[in-house]
Amino acid sequence: MSQPAVVLLSGGLDSSTVVALAQQAGYEVHALSFSYGQRHTVELEAAARVATASGVADHKVIDIDLRAFGGSALTADIDVPKHGSADDLGNDIPITYVPARNTIFLSFALAWAEVLGSSDIFIGVNALDYSGYPDCRPEFVDAFQHLARLATKTGVGGAEITIHAPLIDLTKAEIVAAGTALDVDYGLTISCYDPDPAGLACGHCDSCLLRHRGFVDAGVVDPTSYQPGAAPS
Amino acid sequence: MSQPAVVLLSGGLDSSTVVALAQQAGYEVHALSFSYGQRHTVELEAAARVATASGVADHKVIDIDLRAFGGSALTADIDVPKHGSADDLGNDIPITYVPARNTIFLSFALAWAEVLGSSDIFIGVNALDYSGYPDCRPEFVDAFQHLARLATKTGVGGAEITIHAPLIDLTKAEIVAAGTALDVDYGLTISCYDPDPAGLACGHCDSCLLRHRGFVDAGVVDPTSYQPGAAPS
Repeated sequence: MSQPAVVLLSGGLDSSTVVALAQQAGYEVHALSFSYGQRHTVELEAAARVATASGVADHKVIDIDLRAFGGSALTADIDVPKHGSADDLGNDIPITYVPARNTIFLSFALAWAEVLGSSDIFIGVNALDYSGYPDCRPEFVDAFQHLARLATKTGVGGAEITIHAPLIDLTKAEIVAAGTALDVDYGLTISCYDPDPAGLACGHCDSCLLRHRGFVDAGVVDPTSYQPGAAPS
Repeated sequence: MSQPAVVLLSGGLDSSTVVALAQQAGYEVHALSFSYGQRHTVELEAAARVATASGVADHKVIDIDLRAFGGSALTADIDVPKHGSADDLGNDIPITYVPARNTIFLSFALAWAEVLGSSDIFIGVNALDYSGYPDCRPEFVDAFQHLARLATKTGVGGAEITIHAPLIDLTKAEIVAAGTALDVDYGLTISCYDPDPAGLACGHCDSCLLRHRGFVDAGVVDPTSYQPGAAPS
């Protein structure tokens, strides 16, 4: 019987690749998504599509409200910066950074893992493309694993928790190549910071540009559905 | 101007004491409570009473739903064990343990601290009374502080986060004595695992017995409102 693992699934390119990698490694995937007041709930529709297409064992969506604290373009009611505009809060950290987001997401994953009796959590953070997000660095992942081993019952008497971050050292092109080899349908995913209500990507935000460049560099046709005339060239 | 601090406030004896200790230390207290599917929402009413009586700068209640994962008597629909009954899951950890609860709570506190520009978080965990809860140990607090310093923008460029756990080495009697010296009104607080809908304590659960013993040992009159005939002797 395959071991259960909790996989954080945003519906984007990276986390959808992680689902496939976890399944390839033999885990029974329990996918976890969050509705956290982000304006682009089309992400959750993408996560549901990916979960279904991947045949995961279970997919839960947890409601949390980071808007209560304010503090980020992705949760507050301010404009998302486009490429080339000022998107710097003073530490080369993008304004699209959500405070403590990955810490919160991993904490919920840990709770679910403990209930499932799972000792494996997967997260699609990426150090090369992290663009200044402090909670996408390898030392953050290591610190959370250390915390998780102390925080839980399994950490006291059972198997030790492992936080898997299989994309941490990969370029976007390497991620695309790995997922393509595992038949990930990237047409189901969305990475755009500012999609329209139908879920079409803007083609201009940092996330769209980074994603498109990944397909180009991997030599894979970009299957993203862009808004009319918005496909990056 | 006093520095802002985020204080986790459950409405119980311990966290209400921590609010007073943080204020005594000169911090402007931003109190944070959670509605997490616990059956005793009378806790949240107690938290609101304590926040008001303490004159905190702000009090937020975040809705999260740990019931989605199941796994604990405090969130699932099973009976709370009474003193002397089997309350052991196999590792001397009580069934009332909520998976990853303090990890989740501290993660939200970290998000709010970052938005406030605060580098101080207070939590009322207690090692002596922790009764087998893994996330109440000093090493857990240290590990979260390490994580927090890596996870946040302040951890990259600004002041380092400190997780204050001022009760960690205190007995319940010492906590009662400290709070009484700071005029904490413990009649506003509730610690019972199984209060009635009016918020009256059962007088029989482990938490009621531990709390009552604290008042007795501190030589302070127990101001708890118990259900008729239920006051511990």
